[in-house]
Amino acid sequence: MTPDDATWILTASFVIFTMQTGFGLLESGAVTKKNEVNIMMKNAADVILGGITYWMFGYGFQYGSSPGTNPFIGVGSFFLDSNQDEMGIVFATFIFQLSFATTATTIASGAMAERTDFNAYCIFSLVNTLTYCIPAGWLWGGHGFLKNLGAIDFAGSSGVHLLGGCAAFVATVVLKPRLRRYDNGTAPLPMGNPINALVGTFTLWWGWLVFNCGSTFGITNDKWHYAGRAAITTINASLGAGLCGILFTYFKNRKFEIGDIINSILGGLVSITAGCAFFRPGESIFIGAVGGLFVISIQPMFDKIKVDDPVGAIAVHGGGGLWGMVAVGLFIESDPLLYLSRGRKGLFKGGGLYLLGVQLLSCLSIGVWSVTTTFLMLKGINIFRCIRMSPVEEVLGADYIEHNIRHDCFHYEDMMEDLERKGHHIPKRTDRVPPREEWDRYLVEKYIHGAANTTTQEPKTKPPELDKLLDILSTAKFRQEPNHPRENCTIL
Amino acid sequence: MTPDDATWILTASFVIFTMQTGFGLLESGAVTKKNEVNIMMKNAADVILGGITYWMFGYGFQYGSSPGTNPFIGVGSFFLDSNQDEMGIVFATFIFQLSFATTATTIASGAMAERTDFNAYCIFSLVNTLTYCIPAGWLWGGHGFLKNLGAIDFAGSSGVHLLGGCAAFVATVVLKPRLRRYDNGTAPLPMGNPINALVGTFTLWWGWLVFNCGSTFGITNDKWHYAGRAAITTINASLGAGLCGILFTYFKNRKFEIGDIINSILGGLVSITAGCAFFRPGESIFIGAVGGLFVISIQPMFDKIKVDDPVGAIAVHGGGGLWGMVAVGLFIESDPLLYLSRGRKGLFKGGGLYLLGVQLLSCLSIGVWSVTTTFLMLKGINIFRCIRMSPVEEVLGADYIEHNIRHDCFHYEDMMEDLERKGHHIPKRTDRVPPREEWDRYLVEKYIHGAANTTTQEPKTKPPELDKLLDILSTAKFRQEPNHPRENCTIL
Amino acid sequence: MTPDDATWILTASFVIFTMQTGFGLLESGAVTKKNEVNIMMKNAADVILGGITYWMFGYGFQYGSSPGTNPFIGVGSFFLDSNQDEMGIVFATFIFQLSFATTATTIASGAMAERTDFNAYCIFSLVNTLTYCIPAGWLWGGHGFLKNLGAIDFAGSSGVHLLGGCAAFVATVVLKPRLRRYDNGTAPLPMGNPINALVGTFTLWWGWLVFNCGSTFGITNDKWHYAGRAAITTINASLGAGLCGILFTYFKNRKFEIGDIINSILGGLVSITAGCAFFRPGESIFIGAVGGLFVISIQPMFDKIKVDDPVGAIAVHGGGGLWGMVAVGLFIESDPLLYLSRGRKGLFKGGGLYLLGVQLLSCLSIGVWSVTTTFLMLKGINIFRCIRMSPVEEVLGADYIEHNIRHDCFHYEDMMEDLERKGHHIPKRTDRVPPREEWDRYLVEKYIHGAANTTTQEPKTKPPELDKLLDILSTAKFRQEPNHPRENCTIL
Repeated sequence: MTPDDATWILTASFVIFTMQTGFGLLESGAVTKKNEVNIMMKNAADVILGGITYWMFGYGFQYGSSPGTNPFIGVGSFFLDSNQDEMGIVFATFIFQLSFATTATTIASGAMAERTDFNAYCIFSLVNTLTYCIPAGWLWGGHGFLKNLGAIDFAGSSGVHLLGGCAAFVATVVLKPRLRRYDNGTAPLPMGNPINALVGTFTLWWGWLVFNCGSTFGITNDKWHYAGRAAITTINASLGAGLCGILFTYFKNRKFEIGDIINSILGGLVSITAGCAFFRPGESIFIGAVGGLFVISIQPMFDKIKVDDPVGAIAVHGGGGLWGMVAVGLFIESDPLLYLSRGRKGLFKGGGLYLLGVQLLSCLSIGVWSVTTTFLMLKGINIFRCIRMSPVEEVLGADYIEHNIRHDCFHYEDMMEDLERKGHHIPKRTDRVPPREEWDRYLVEKYIHGAANTTTQEPKTKPPELDKLLDILSTAKFRQEPNHPRENCTIL
Repeated sequence: MTPDDATWILTASFVIFTMQTGFGLLESGAVTKKNEVNIMMKNAADVILGGITYWMFGYGFQYGSSPGTNPFIGVGSFFLDSNQDEMGIVFATFIFQLSFATTATTIASGAMAERTDFNAYCIFSLVNTLTYCIPAGWLWGGHGFLKNLGAIDFAGSSGVHLLGGCAAFVATVVLKPRLRRYDNGTAPLPMGNPINALVGTFTLWWGWLVFNCGSTFGITNDKWHYAGRAAITTINASLGAGLCGILFTYFKNRKFEIGDIINSILGGLVSITAGCAFFRPGESIFIGAVGGLFVISIQPMFDKIKVDDPVGAIAVHGGGGLWGMVAVGLFIESDPLLYLSRGRKGLFKGGGLYLLGVQLLSCLSIGVWSVTTTFLMLKGINIFRCIRMSPVEEVLGADYIEHNIRHDCFHYEDMMEDLERKGHHIPKRTDRVPPREEWDRYLVEKYIHGAANTTTQEPKTKPPELDKLLDILSTAKFRQEPNHPRENCTIL
Repeated sequence: MTPDDATWILTASFVIFTMQTGFGLLESGAVTKKNEVNIMMKNAADVILGGITYWMFGYGFQYGSSPGTNPFIGVGSFFLDSNQDEMGIVFATFIFQLSFATTATTIASGAMAERTDFNAYCIFSLVNTLTYCIPAGWLWGGHGFLKNLGAIDFAGSSGVHLLGGCAAFVATVVLKPRLRRYDNGTAPLPMGNPINALVGTFTLWWGWLVFNCGSTFGITNDKWHYAGRAAITTINASLGAGLCGILFTYFKNRKFEIGDIINSILGGLVSITAGCAFFRPGESIFIGAVGGLFVISIQPMFDKIKVDDPVGAIAVHGGGGLWGMVAVGLFIESDPLLYLSRGRKGLFKGGGLYLLGVQLLSCLSIGVWSVTTTFLMLKGINIFRCIRMSPVEEVLGADYIEHNIRHDCFHYEDMMEDLERKGHHIPKRTDRVPPREEWDRYLVEKYIHGAANTTTQEPKTKPPELDKLLDILSTAKFRQEPNHPRENCTIL
């Protein structure tokens, strides 16, 4: 590595970190106002807590090469340090990969929005490094079995996005939908702050350009040619995807729904990520367009099966990531300059089925890994700390409950006073006795979804604080603010 | 081109793209809340649709060198692709120029805010690439007649800003003012979100620094000296301009109007753009100061002649761009290192009138081109799709009409119910029969500006949906929200 | 310096400028809405006015080497210009240092929020360059006595942050607390816009990474190794600090207060800044953790002694900067590659007390300098222009008073009408006769803090406009908006 390469890698890393801001703004703009601060704090937690564990063991499991390293996992470089002669390379690699690792967790945070306990989420942030670092080693570590089979994921369609999308899917299933989410059908809910969602999208867009180009991991030799190609393919994919998104949403209902347009752009970007340094510019428009359309077409299906993903993370990152890996197996040509594809070509370029097979194997391995570890982690955390907020907490919103922030359009005091006057009091956090899943289910069905839907029996033993919740839910009339629109300030 | 140059060009391109975010925030912060999302979606459309056509034919008309190329237009490189050996240079050039091209269109979008039909705007975004790419070839392509005459526009004072400002002027004239814009005089309307406007300004400020420095289009040889000089001149021009803006607005009315300060800073930046690599630091302060003052001095004149430019794009980009080109003809010295000015000097440095003449010729050519093509495009689009929103749409705001977004401070349901109760219904978009320009004019004069001003006769044939609009406008009392200030939430 | 170094320095400078956006968003999000635009305009003024004086004399006092230069101050390079051969180095240095200089002033602006007259602040911005440039010369100029003693402040823990923190302290003491700030105890007031505060924090976070890494001031030779180390230590310090912040705020009151978390992250970043190129990654987590904890622990103490710092600038920048300098004296090892520490080591690495002593001497010199000059400047400005807004102005908020911006949740007209109806009128700015400090004190004690606290006598001579203020304050009942929460829209 030369100083020139260091400039390229470090500069790219700096810009890639701004993607956390982008994710934060997009997610916080997409949820209701009563949770907008909380979701951004989750992004901060992803960096802080995920960063610490990535330094402690994540980098080591991904890139370690000490004895014990095997095709499944790296060993060594824990609590990363380096001597003076190698520190330039080692630390630049760390800082670049760190931004990938925290992004993988952040993807899941969007899908978990508006109902996840913040304490439980912090634990999830700490341990979720494991979900990322091991398959990242498969793909990019010298020991990795996928790398050695010839799998190509240039900038993380599977290693970051498919992985994150699968984690998001498991998390939404485990968490169940937000209260009353599907009372009025499965259409997407209005965004709390569409401008912030759009600014976040722009920030991600430019950040992605750097993410993909920076993944040459250097600029000297012929790497800069690949960086140039990654730039045009990344932009072109987003253009094709955005165009399809605009046409799709317009012909669907004669409106330009910004959620559809945002998700199509992001879907196109995810799709191109695996092969951005290899595709041709024209192909990129096509790959992005297919990816964008695919993502916004499958998005409503998740809502139909009541998988409640407030920001569309499953479709965008899972769906887009899958198609991106497949597209590599279909479209890429061999690259004579850096020989990154090792002479292999995609199916449509006469390369046969081998590469496509390896790409699909990568998706399968990473998908199974992500689903399994995320499920085990969330269930494990749930033993110690209920990962779902209590209904009352969810009603009041995480910004107030977790961060003591009162938004203009909610009247927390009135709600509180009203409840107290009726002889109830808001249970303090420390009153809560986790876990009480069956109770939550019963409670939600009876009082939130309405008695008609109740299919569960009242559980036998009742944690003490639940009496209060039951009372609150059955008697409190939250004062509805007449002068604010329903969409952003609805209590339930 | 070396890897070092690639790092410089690509990094600059990445940062320049953030200027779209800057423009988006500035424009969306400057308009009323009911259009803030729409204007930002227009910026997204500029990238998506303008990007596709720039890839298809824009780059080719600008830089193509195949047979048929002549001093007026390049030919070749359509649907841009490249072989492996040249792709580094070709794609880096494309990505850098793409950010210029989309900026040129975005400048016009600000002036068209709050009254342009989004469908029509999308078509405009698609075809407006033509307005940019041809004069960009004159200035920067090997074939260009202005380049060969010795015109100097280092980073686009005329090629991007004057061009965009002229397009903005034509667009505002064709579109006519917003409904009731001048009912209470010609003072600027309050901004919907001043914080976003300021954040957008800051984003543009830093982006501009990169835009100007990156226009060295490389860093090796002696280019980095010019990059360093472009940095200090760009900053100094903005400082001089900002200082004048602060003094101007304070002495005008003892307030620090942020619109004046923002536009003076941007005016200074536009002014320095043409010669940023050549001026001396002290001169830059002066050139920026003159540019900033010029821009905010002429801005009110446009309002006086009822050219309604909600963000001041005509003055900032048109006025600043013109002065920037003239300043090159007055102030630059010959540059012995890269010989970019070919030994020519400005009038004040003893270079005579030749350079000044060429600079003025460039302004004239580009101005005439931009005015003509924009006028023809908008009139052409208007045949198929009315470019102006209907009065009812304008009243309700593009965010609701186009994107189904309801803002807190408006009460769309009440308005709707009220209208329906009175026996009217909001005409669906598909009811609308374009074009109906003479009807719009009549309608606006009679019902919006008030009967006293009516100078036009009722047109003879009446499109069916206009009955409804007439009824709505003459009878509906839009409920005025008592608890919100008038400035941001006014319906009409 | 090579073209590669130029790329590194200029790119870093560009990104560092985005920190102004970060500070602006953080400060504007942290204050009440009625001052959010004003505080961001102060950041713009810091760049514009501070930038002009830095170009005029700041750079010269810091780096000048003409005859007359001595260990205390540089002479020469005023109104900075350069010849063609040296301009690359000179201008890149200027642009890099300029971003440091404006940051130093911006730190103080946060502490002065919500009560500082904007005219007076503009003068402060102009002259405050002096506060920064002289000690910056001590630390980093060839002539500087601290540099020659061996003081190490790699990226400005003392030269920027401690300096800014001390200035912030003096400014808050001189300005006195905001009206009614401590009526309900010393707990922090709610933020006006927590999302903006968080976005600002993220922006600062990534900007800081570049600030610290870019301070290698080059990338060739072995500088890139140091840049890599600065990247990991900067991030690790913020991770350790953020973790401590999360734990601290949670165990304090079972809530995750975002003010505590933001300030701990920033405190960690300030702490690592002095030695970021030298520490080991594990040590950095520790140093950041101590810094973050220290900062949020001392923050409430300032409120207890009624030093009213709305954004916590004194604790974060002053406290963090002090600890950062001490940490260098404790932890660093000698660096064989660039020999920046000249073979010296910290106390814990066997280097004895010399380095620690020099570091403390630097803190003392810079602290005393900053306190003295800031005090003299503010008192001097106060002679010509009262630096504190009048109570009525403060009540109405600087956004309305200075920038004519009316926020949704305030009802300026009602307040005005109410006052006029009662026979008073809002005094025009030009009515005001500065200085009238003793009157302000009396007024605030009697009418704002309540009669019981009054310890001062009514001053003898009464400036004419004070009659009106007294009447207003004693009789006006500002209409309290029932439908908005008290925290963001409170008048007093």
